[in-house]
Amino acid sequence: TKPTTAVQQTSNQVVLINTFEVPKGKEQAALASWQKSRDFLKTQDGYISTRLHRNPNPNGKFHLINVAVWRSAEDFKKATANMRATLKDNAVEGVVFTPDLYQVIESD
Amino acid sequence: TKPTTAVQQTSNQVVLINTFEVPKGKEQAALASWQKSRDFLKTQDGYISTRLHRNPNPNGKFHLINVAVWRSAEDFKKATANMRATLKDNAVEGVVFTPDLYQVIESD
Repeated sequence: TKPTTAVQQTSNQVVLINTFEVPKGKEQAALASWQKSRDFLKTQDGYISTRLHRNPNPNGKFHLINVAVWRSAEDFKKATANMRATLKDNAVEGVVFTPDLYQVIESD
Repeated sequence: TKPTTAVQQTSNQVVLINTFEVPKGKEQAALASWQKSRDFLKTQDGYISTRLHRNPNPNGKFHLINVAVWRSAEDFKKATANMRATLKDNAVEGVVFTPDLYQVIESD
């Protein structure tokens, strides 16, 4: 196996990870809401990529987790401020989401 | 912008996402414990890759989130059973971790 090395920070890139707790019966609405947000955010400056993960276990804590790469924290903050000003009524009742910006510190 | 398409499942690959809530003062211990687990798991059959994300905000809910790709759920379950039988005393008191296996349903 190849040696593992800690990741050197070579840019201002950040990774948004957003965990979604979704009440039963709200799965389709949560996905549609996420897609609507993604369709907006991918048009914004600094967007790089996104991946949405679904938990096949209906009793899992998080039904969806989004992992998205942005050029910088500032780009992400601008984009989400634009989104909040543009997309109205995109919240799904009862969904608990916990977005934060992370740095990759190990990659193997 | 390129069109977005839902991801077709072309293998049994799964993504382990593990969120870690870490009490203040336990950050170094939590990282060392994760590294020890990773060093074991990367030797196991079916391991593909892993990335550890750190939240620079000390008040963020999750201090660390691991995103790892495995060839199949069965490989992952075997590997973690081997790990539990091999690595003793690798738990860090007070750390709450929530591992689950996910499928990528959207990628853009």
